[in-house]
This record gives sequence, structure tokens and C-alpha cells, in this order.
Amino acid sequence: MHPAAVKITNGDKRAAARAMTWIENGTEEGRRILSDLFPLTGTAYVIGITGSPGSGKSSLTDAFVSVLRAQGKRVGVVAVDPSSPFTGGALLGDRLRLNHHATDPQVFIRSMSTRGALGGVARATREIVHVLDVYGCEYIFVETVGVGQSEIDIMTIADTIALVLNPGAGDQIQALKAGVMEIADLFIINKADLPGSDKTVHEVNTLLDLIHDFEYRPKVVKTTVADSSTVEAAWTEVEAHRVFLQTSGRLTDRRQSRTSCEVMAIAVEQLKGWLGPFLSGTAEGQSLLASLQSGSGSPYAAAQDALRKWRHFMLS
Amino acid sequence: MHPAAVKITNGDKRAAARAMTWIENGTEEGRRILSDLFPLTGTAYVIGITGSPGSGKSSLTDAFVSVLRAQGKRVGVVAVDPSSPFTGGALLGDRLRLNHHATDPQVFIRSMSTRGALGGVARATREIVHVLDVYGCEYIFVETVGVGQSEIDIMTIADTIALVLNPGAGDQIQALKAGVMEIADLFIINKADLPGSDKTVHEVNTLLDLIHDFEYRPKVVKTTVADSSTVEAAWTEVEAHRVFLQTSGRLTDRRQSRTSCEVMAIAVEQLKGWLGPFLSGTAEGQSLLASLQSGSGSPYAAAQDALRKWRHFMLS
Repeated sequence: MHPAAVKITNGDKRAAARAMTWIENGTEEGRRILSDLFPLTGTAYVIGITGSPGSGKSSLTDAFVSVLRAQGKRVGVVAVDPSSPFTGGALLGDRLRLNHHATDPQVFIRSMSTRGALGGVARATREIVHVLDVYGCEYIFVETVGVGQSEIDIMTIADTIALVLNPGAGDQIQALKAGVMEIADLFIINKADLPGSDKTVHEVNTLLDLIHDFEYRPKVVKTTVADSSTVEAAWTEVEAHRVFLQTSGRLTDRRQSRTSCEVMAIAVEQLKGWLGPFLSGTAEGQSLLASLQSGSGSPYAAAQDALRKWRHFMLS
Repeated sequence: MHPAAVKITNGDKRAAARAMTWIENGTEEGRRILSDLFPLTGTAYVIGITGSPGSGKSSLTDAFVSVLRAQGKRVGVVAVDPSSPFTGGALLGDRLRLNHHATDPQVFIRSMSTRGALGGVARATREIVHVLDVYGCEYIFVETVGVGQSEIDIMTIADTIALVLNPGAGDQIQALKAGVMEIADLFIINKADLPGSDKTVHEVNTLLDLIHDFEYRPKVVKTTVADSSTVEAAWTEVEAHRVFLQTSGRLTDRRQSRTSCEVMAIAVEQLKGWLGPFLSGTAEGQSLLASLQSGSGSPYAAAQDALRKWRHFMLS
């Protein structure tokens, strides 16, 4: 076992943080640690928190962490921020807002930027969750900004997915359009002290009613972060979903499909890691592109050629 | 040449529409037509229009189409809507808003849902643009809802990328976070009759100033769709960017990198098309996942195993 992996299993926070950096950077060191850690994963319960910017995801996550800390649980938070060349993604101050628990040794907070490939972000998020799991976090929150396809991909890591909305119609429609409606296990109407929260609850329920074959009908709850009883009530629904998953056997299915996604993503990344440099950095790749550009052949034929090359590369 | 491909080169609208459906569905028929069409592409100029929901992208696209129709150009529009199980993505009525030109035989409008794989959407969008190109559209607009990573992927198809913002700060920060700032060639502050438009122009310019090494410094313009002179002024900036790309040789570079993305996406899709069914539908794949689940091995080792299988599959 890699020395860092041993340290992580012993709850060494600095070793965990260092491993996460290696993982984020996609280093061989990170991969070796992960290969050691993966068999030890599966203890933590992972909650995905998604929603539009400004919906209050971070504050709500912070409030959930408080609930769990009151129960003495060890908690991890992974905040996925899309990248910005200026600030590394901290513009909206998510890190600051989570600082409430920043000094608590039983809370591990990790902010990730989404630099580089998309597949890379989903991969790194999954793997950082593995580290937190083995490190000893009993609950791990994965918070993503936005409700687009990339966030849905990242959310495959979660056992329970909560979609945070606010009173008013815009968010809901946006959510629908992004297809999050189908993946959310719990709808949280946050900032419920704003006007129109009951109407929003009703709207979401109406839309949910249009989806017929729910094995588990997502609940729609209202929260106001300042009112801890609403946060606790929302948390109860997270736990209810967890119980459903566990008693129905769906937790195993979900995690198996997560592992499948993970294997697939790694394989795709390996293909891309070869194909990108081949196309952009080799004479052969360049001539393949140039001949396409000049009007001979098709991308399909070129992809076939490239894959044939790769096969030889893998064989050698 | 596939008979449908011949018809498309002759400007047969129904043949083009049918081919697009085949392409969207990922059929072999579609691939064969594309292989015939690809060498004939490269005439159309492709403009990507992106921005948050509600920023007025569709209305602005509609207004640009009017400018081009006044010049007698044939125009294509591809609107990429995230999927919804309820409506197929038409909730926000983008199709309706574009109906202004729906009866004009020189305007080809195609709405796409984003069902299925993400790579699939970017692929289908690129390929539908190829069809429109060969069909004879001189300008093609690709409009995506949202400013996430998936939209950035789709935008690799465009020669000029316009980011539509509205007066007010939220959108800008969201855009920054999603990394669109780096890929936009033109910033359009739409609904400029709303308060704060000059401030927004200033803010975007300030942020752009922080990026030093622009080869082409994106312009920031204001539009009000009802005021056609503002739309024409914005269009002039699209043309200015086009001239830059053409005179600097960057258009060739951009299109070569687009082709590279296209080849890569096809190769990845082929890998996924084999790997998904292998993992979920074969005894071997299932046992691979089950052994991972039970704590033996790592996803990296499993990906290696799977790729080794694939290699044999490709060889056979």
C-alpha cells in the first residue's frame, strides 16, 4: 500500500489533502493511491446538492453540516466551482460561505475548480469523494454550481441528489430544461421566506405528478437556512431516501452503476489522453487532419484510422 | 454518393431534414450520408450564440437572421435545448420565438433536444451544421441554452462565438465561472434598454482587460432587439471578427481544431458504444463490476481490463 494511502486510512488530514491535489492534477501518484483506497470505499453516504447559482446551496450545505456535527458525525464537503482564469472559481465566495465549519477538525472541505477536461472534473470529484470516504467521513456533500449536463454527470457520484430551488418559476423551468427533474431525489425550495414558496412547491409537485413511474416519489420541502427546524426537516427527508435505497436494494444498484460510470470515464480519459496528442502533436495525426480539411475522407474514417493506431499502440 | 446526400447538395429541404433526424438518432444511414457530405463542407460561416436562459438569445438570433435575409443570404439555425421529459425541451418556447422566419424557404430552423449522451449532442450539432452547410446555408447560427461546460463543448463548432448577457451583474459572474469569458469573441449586452447596461459593458471590458494576451480583443456591444440599428451594429462586429479570422489565417486553425474535436468525439463515442453494453450487458462486464463492488481491484485496473477486451474486439 502507498504510504499516503495508509495515512489516509488512519485519518491523516494533510495526507488526504495532498492526495487530493495529486488526484486533481491527474498524476500517476494519485492513481496509485486510489487503486489502494478504492477497495476500502463504500462506507460514506454521499449527498449531491445542485441548483442554480444564488439558490443558496452553500448555505444550505453548511446548515446540513451543522445538523450532522450536532450528531457527532465526521463530514466532508466537495464544492465544484467552474473555472475562471481570474480567481480559480472563487468569485461567488462559496468557500467563504462554507467557512463556518472551516476550523472544525471533523469537517473536511475541498473546493475544486473545473479546469481542464470535463471528464476530468467528474473523475476528480468521484475520486476525491473516495479519499474522503476512506479518510473516515460518514457523510459527504458534493455541491455543484448550476444545473447543466456537466453537473448531472458529476451527480452520478451521489446516493441522494437534492435540487435546490427558490420561490419563483424561472429556476424550475431551467431545471426542467436541464433534465435535473429526473435525477433529483429531493427538491428543496430554499429561501422559503420569500414570496411564492408554496406556489413553487405546488408547481414542482405538479410537474412530478406528470412523471408516472416513480419507484420513489421525490419529496418537495421548504427551507429557510436561518430556521434550523426547516433544515432538520429537510435532512429527515434525505435520511428517508437513504432508508428507501437501503431497504429496496437500490443503493447497491446505484453504486454499481456509479462504478460502471467510473470505469467508463477512466477508459475514455485514457483514449483521449492518447488521441489528443496524436492528432495535435504527431506528423501522422496532423496529416490525417489536413487531408480531412482539404476535403478527402470523413471524420468517421479518420476516427477509425486513429483507433487502429491506438490499438497498435496498446499492443506494443 | 448516398441518394440523400445528392439531394442535400441540390438544396432539397426535406432530404436535409430527414438526414438530420437520422443523424440525431445516431443511425448508420446518417453516418453514411455524413461521410459523403463532409468533404463538401466549409463554405458556411458558423456563429455560436450562447448565454443564460432568458437573456434573449433566440430573439437576437431571430434579429440577426432578419439582417441576413435582407441581404438575400440563406440562413440556418440550430437551437440546442436541454431535454425535458415533458415537452422535449420546448418549455421556454424557443421554437415559437424563432417562428418569425419559420415560413421563409431560405431559413432552415432545426431544434434539437439534448436527450441521450452529452458527447452525442455535441456530435449531432456539429453534424447537423455540416448538413446545413452543404445544403447551402451561407450563415449558420448555433444557439445553446446556458453557459455550462456542455455548451462550451458544443461551441467548438462555431467560427465566431457571441455571449449574450443582460444588464446586471449576476450573468457576468455566472459566465465567468463557467469559463465562457475565454471562449467568447463578442459580448452582446442584450435588453440594453434595461437599467445598468453601460455599467455592464464597463464590467465586461474590465474583466477582459485582465486577460492580457488577446490576439483579437473581443468587442462588447449593446443591443435592443426592437432597435434594428443596434442589431446591425452587433452584426458588423460579427463580420469584423470574421475578417480577422480570415486575414490572420486563424479561421483555418480554428476549423482544423474543430475537425480534431470531431474525430476525437467520434472515437470516444465508439469506445463508449462498446464499453457501456459490455459493462451492463455481458456476464464478463457484470463480474468485473461485481468484483470492484466487493472490494477487489480498482476502477483503473478494471478500465485496463475492459480496454484490453476492446482491443481484441476491434481486432476480430
